[in-house]
Amino acid sequence: MQQLKERIEKEGKVLPGNIIKVDGFLNHRVDTKLMQDIADEFARHFDLRQVNLILTAEASGIALAAICAHRWGKPMVFAKKAKSDNIEGGLYQSDIFSYTYKKKVTLLVSKEWIRPGDHVLIIDDFLANGEAIRGLCDIVASAGAALVGVGCAVEKGFQGGGDRLRAAGVNLQSLAIIESAEPGNIVFRD
Amino acid sequence: MQQLKERIEKEGKVLPGNIIKVDGFLNHRVDTKLMQDIADEFARHFDLRQVNLILTAEASGIALAAICAHRWGKPMVFAKKAKSDNIEGGLYQSDIFSYTYKKKVTLLVSKEWIRPGDHVLIIDDFLANGEAIRGLCDIVASAGAALVGVGCAVEKGFQGGGDRLRAAGVNLQSLAIIESAEPGNIVFRD
Repeated sequence: MQQLKERIEKEGKVLPGNIIKVDGFLNHRVDTKLMQDIADEFARHFDLRQVNLILTAEASGIALAAICAHRWGKPMVFAKKAKSDNIEGGLYQSDIFSYTYKKKVTLLVSKEWIRPGDHVLIIDDFLANGEAIRGLCDIVASAGAALVGVGCAVEKGFQGGGDRLRAAGVNLQSLAIIESAEPGNIVFRD
Repeated sequence: MQQLKERIEKEGKVLPGNIIKVDGFLNHRVDTKLMQDIADEFARHFDLRQVNLILTAEASGIALAAICAHRWGKPMVFAKKAKSDNIEGGLYQSDIFSYTYKKKVTLLVSKEWIRPGDHVLIIDDFLANGEAIRGLCDIVASAGAALVGVGCAVEKGFQGGGDRLRAAGVNLQSLAIIESAEPGNIVFRD
């Protein structure tokens, strides 16, 4: 998606440790018009008539997923993150490793809000190692729901998480895949 | 807001400890059409021409605030929550007490994304003790920005947080104020 790549080139900041900050329009300050344009781009990649539920994970995926779901006239569910093993019942859960927090995090979705027969599109702002998406895919499978696909705005291609999901058969569409990032030189996958 | 009160009466669950769960449409599963109707109701309470920035706190405020901001053509910023005292520079921060986590939490907003001269409307899904809103108001003041008002979907009136903010001069508009809640009997303030 050309508009998104241009925003990353113009406003993204490359920090030590392969961190790419896009917090001026995607995941701290949110450019809501850009989120709408991203929603419209996803709509060209997925057959939304098949989809009845949008799923994301807290926190930074929520803004994009909410605007997508609203634009498409669908409900949205966000998985909660628990940082303890003391989890109440009635929940689907998946343990993931958070590279942000450097520890195990449990993603949780109430069994009330995802059901067998749901057709789920996962939406997230960012994909690096792909742990959050893997956890969300686990939860969709645990619920006996169908995964239609996964839409990510920005993928760090060089960390391999996206390619592992594709190799596992997930219909993953990322709108900007970063192959390498150095200050002043961000290279996208064609 | 009659529609919101009816949803709370019909779908809200009252749990021990004065907990009112509205996670089927507001803060786990999100009814995005209802969020749009809430945005339109807020638009009748606030002069949005004055507002150039929507502010909320992660995680559950983000869905409503994103849909409001998108509907109004404004950018949105969400404060991040840090559960440590090890905070990097360049941030406005406010310490609040989280009754959910039973501990101190620090709300953080980058100084890049809220500026003197901004006219800020705070949007949140839920107000009980009002700690999150108080922290967001602190951050607006620290930035030298102007607070236009605070819009909350659901307020637990009996916990007093909303009335404390009103007494402090905040233009707080809550669309459903719960005065008392027992299973099968939720009473709203007129």
